[in-house]
Amino acid sequence: MRLSQLIGQRIKEAPRDAQTASHIFLIRGGYCRPVSAGIYSLLPLGKRLVAKVEGIIREEMNRIDGQEALMPVVLPAELWQESGRFETVGGELLRFKDRNGKDMLLAMTHEEAVVHLARTELNSYKQLPAMMYQIQTKYRDEARPRAGLIRVREFTMKDGYSFHATQECLEAYYERAHEAYERIFKRVGMADCISIESDPGMMGGKVSHEFMALAECGEDTIFVSPDGSSYKSNRECAVSNPAYVKDAPLEQEKVHTPDTKSIEDVAAFLSMEPSQAGKAVFYRDMDGNLVFVCIRGDIEVNEAKLRKIVQSAELIFASDAEIEAAGAVAGYASILGIDCDKVRVVVDRSFAESSNLVVGANEADYHVKNFNYERDIDEESRDKITVADIATVRDGDPCPRTGEPLRMLRGIEVGNIFQLGTKYTEAMHCTFLNSNGKAVPMIMGCYGIGVGRTVAAVLEQSHDDYGPIWPMSIAPYQVHICALNIKKGDVREVSEKLYAELIERGVEVLFDDRGEKAGFMFNDADLIGIPLRLIVSPKTLEEGKVEFKRRDSRDRELIDLSAAADLVVEQIAVELQRWQP
Amino acid sequence: MRLSQLIGQRIKEAPRDAQTASHIFLIRGGYCRPVSAGIYSLLPLGKRLVAKVEGIIREEMNRIDGQEALMPVVLPAELWQESGRFETVGGELLRFKDRNGKDMLLAMTHEEAVVHLARTELNSYKQLPAMMYQIQTKYRDEARPRAGLIRVREFTMKDGYSFHATQECLEAYYERAHEAYERIFKRVGMADCISIESDPGMMGGKVSHEFMALAECGEDTIFVSPDGSSYKSNRECAVSNPAYVKDAPLEQEKVHTPDTKSIEDVAAFLSMEPSQAGKAVFYRDMDGNLVFVCIRGDIEVNEAKLRKIVQSAELIFASDAEIEAAGAVAGYASILGIDCDKVRVVVDRSFAESSNLVVGANEADYHVKNFNYERDIDEESRDKITVADIATVRDGDPCPRTGEPLRMLRGIEVGNIFQLGTKYTEAMHCTFLNSNGKAVPMIMGCYGIGVGRTVAAVLEQSHDDYGPIWPMSIAPYQVHICALNIKKGDVREVSEKLYAELIERGVEVLFDDRGEKAGFMFNDADLIGIPLRLIVSPKTLEEGKVEFKRRDSRDRELIDLSAAADLVVEQIAVELQRWQP
Repeated sequence: MRLSQLIGQRIKEAPRDAQTASHIFLIRGGYCRPVSAGIYSLLPLGKRLVAKVEGIIREEMNRIDGQEALMPVVLPAELWQESGRFETVGGELLRFKDRNGKDMLLAMTHEEAVVHLARTELNSYKQLPAMMYQIQTKYRDEARPRAGLIRVREFTMKDGYSFHATQECLEAYYERAHEAYERIFKRVGMADCISIESDPGMMGGKVSHEFMALAECGEDTIFVSPDGSSYKSNRECAVSNPAYVKDAPLEQEKVHTPDTKSIEDVAAFLSMEPSQAGKAVFYRDMDGNLVFVCIRGDIEVNEAKLRKIVQSAELIFASDAEIEAAGAVAGYASILGIDCDKVRVVVDRSFAESSNLVVGANEADYHVKNFNYERDIDEESRDKITVADIATVRDGDPCPRTGEPLRMLRGIEVGNIFQLGTKYTEAMHCTFLNSNGKAVPMIMGCYGIGVGRTVAAVLEQSHDDYGPIWPMSIAPYQVHICALNIKKGDVREVSEKLYAELIERGVEVLFDDRGEKAGFMFNDADLIGIPLRLIVSPKTLEEGKVEFKRRDSRDRELIDLSAAADLVVEQIAVELQRWQP
Repeated sequence: MRLSQLIGQRIKEAPRDAQTASHIFLIRGGYCRPVSAGIYSLLPLGKRLVAKVEGIIREEMNRIDGQEALMPVVLPAELWQESGRFETVGGELLRFKDRNGKDMLLAMTHEEAVVHLARTELNSYKQLPAMMYQIQTKYRDEARPRAGLIRVREFTMKDGYSFHATQECLEAYYERAHEAYERIFKRVGMADCISIESDPGMMGGKVSHEFMALAECGEDTIFVSPDGSSYKSNRECAVSNPAYVKDAPLEQEKVHTPDTKSIEDVAAFLSMEPSQAGKAVFYRDMDGNLVFVCIRGDIEVNEAKLRKIVQSAELIFASDAEIEAAGAVAGYASILGIDCDKVRVVVDRSFAESSNLVVGANEADYHVKNFNYERDIDEESRDKITVADIATVRDGDPCPRTGEPLRMLRGIEVGNIFQLGTKYTEAMHCTFLNSNGKAVPMIMGCYGIGVGRTVAAVLEQSHDDYGPIWPMSIAPYQVHICALNIKKGDVREVSEKLYAELIERGVEVLFDDRGEKAGFMFNDADLIGIPLRLIVSPKTLEEGKVEFKRRDSRDRELIDLSAAADLVVEQIAVELQRWQP
């Protein structure tokens, strides 16, 4: 492709709202353009990049016996009503009525659609396991899209769905899918990608993993044991193994603590650490019920864990009026004097297992010292209280496996895999005849990869100040020819010949034939980020040489013009090998 | 692929609502499944078929310098407000609000989105011509989807858009696109596809062509001159060249014609042909104005032509009350006594150029004989009347070029190309700097192909009573191995070896390894429609032979097992050659 004809400009300025390298360089390099918030068009360079990523995904899905299909973007609501998700999923599911008044939706995932197919197409254990996947457009009505291709509304996703006769079969296949994902992220050139246990959330099922591309700009927080493998978890479900201080209980004492409504205030007033206090947090669940949480003063509530315990898809903070109605005093609230028959109480282990905490007195301007959960809450109340791990893990907390301090990292979720079990197949009556001739629900797994997000994550891990440094395996072109002073001497002729010869030899070439100034051309080449570069100029041609440069190095090498094509072909092979698993 | 593992059942019964071969066999053969009215999932066989069609389209678009891009399915309304189509396009455009209350739509075509790109990415005549295309999902909220993949709501379309500095450049490129389309439809194996002049309709622009796959079940009616090339046109804009009978005017005569509200009634009552009468038809346009049409009694109004003349996107029949309000008597209406200042009158040439017609008297139960337009309508009124061709052409009408009787055919519109001109670029301020440094609007062309519809049309032209007969160029697999009595003798071993050898040699093989009865397997093979078939059975193996069969023939040939793979490889090459342009 001649750069003079390539549709898609390089842009000097970063978009105003762009913070991350991938957002900045995908726009500046002419890879994509915003059409609306979180909705992008891919320009030809971006489309080539994405097509290569899709090609790698397709090969790996076929390798694990996936069969490619294509399901619709627009689905009838009735399918999601069958699974129950039409009601339970929030505003990110775009619902609309068609011109005949029928409820429809834009699919953001295809469990229902694939189960709809499986229940007619699969009916005997002899056909199982079976895996179907697609690479297809999805829409998620994000309220706040951000970071370019990382959090968008419309996106291309590879989603695969496997069906099994037994849990063992699902687990074995899940391992194969996990390996395929490792191969995919390696092959697309992601240097730093880890899989971690995760919370299945609205997808349902029990076991699931997220594939996280490590990157500073990632939206996800991850905890990893120092050895990098013993323990890896998303913050949403990460656990640590802290030992809480267990001293002998001292006598309770009510103290006057005026104007100390926060933990920080009361700790300062009493000259102690927040960890010596107990914190009270009030939520309202989706049914409007109050949830009262006790946790140690220095620890944050992990709402994902709490939502699971109280079985509520959402939790919001309760108002002061609601807190008062529950018999507590906002700012000085504690479990003391709370009627556990009227309020759902959840206590974190950090609160139940600590000694001599300072807690609110449920009276304005007063706290109580030396609270001890087991001593101070009678057994009948304790029976009604849930004690559980609802703590947010912190950087350096002890690893639950090794006890070593956990490392906190940030990542971009590029893929996820779920052992769904029978959540969808039971709800939607998707059964097969087992070897005894009995109809039982299929056991399901599902496997997603965000294609655009993968591209963005590769860039986050592979760029410099001037632009992307694309791995050879997904680069939109393999070599970039810059013809300097194209009108001088043989430059045009030599460049055209090189261009033709490389194409002839199967190389994907981008040819800057515009006759622009050297600095301008090099800036554009850096912004595009093709891994190899040949620079043809009158000066070096005098000696029968051209310059060879790699995008990931600042060095240039003078090579014989006659050897240039061979070197490029050889280097492409070397680079492609580098990303082979 | 082993048929035992292929996801997608063959089905014995045709779907209840299916009338056409493509609808019946794409469902019965396990190619696709309905999800909602006009919304389908592609099963793996269907996806492979579609991928091959897409591959051919992609090659031909690249050959004419197209650059592949990808634009969004969901677009902000503001883009379509800029072009004016957000308001002018009807209910088939799916409009909705996102969760932030912003107007959005599901794109059914991408002129606005591509112009949005072109105005930032293309700015100099040096970059033109430039063509960008995509293969992408579209949604059109059809009120009445029908005929399987032929008229759907969600579909995959290849849409390309070219930008030019001059009209000459557009015209030259349009020719190249026309040739590329001919190559595409040839390469996908369409035996009978013609391009015809068409009405650009809501797309705008002047010159456009439709590519019509000829098929009995087609929704479009086409008129073709007997030589097949002098004249070809869609009924919507077809013209014929009838000579109207021009006799000497006779004296007007009012006759009593009780209960003759229709042309048929009055013709029967007066013992004449409908062609001797004049017909009055009343419409209401989109602004609510009455449009009064006069046409010869035996000719139907072509509403597409009429809509253009009165510049109204829709026309509906007026009510009797509206007709009376215009000073006419429903059932006995005519132009006689109509006030041309109050009502827009459009007269077909057949009415203006005929002599001595019977027309309504604008009085209940009376007609007037011997109406002659020029004589009976005064010049002042005639100046306010539009005389034009608004006639629907009929089978056998004289060709406007040769005068020979036109043939009426039916077709499926599989592609269309438009010289759009500056309709979108002017409205959306998409300009470039010409060689004089002046900003002028780009001149545009657009080029569409319905991918699923193309698949369906190929099937309509290539099937028998038992299923599709896929051309080699798009068949989901190239050869189908049937292993009969798989447990007997060497059948399994030989079949597995053949399967492995063919795959090794790059052949796409479907292997029926299910051990079903011969008749059942052959029925399935016919329903799937793979072009070549090898039948391995204990009987023929005794003599070292297998059977070779083509899907398009009922004959079977006994061949040496040792020559089977060679024959298949050779026949694939021959078959692929057959669809080369």
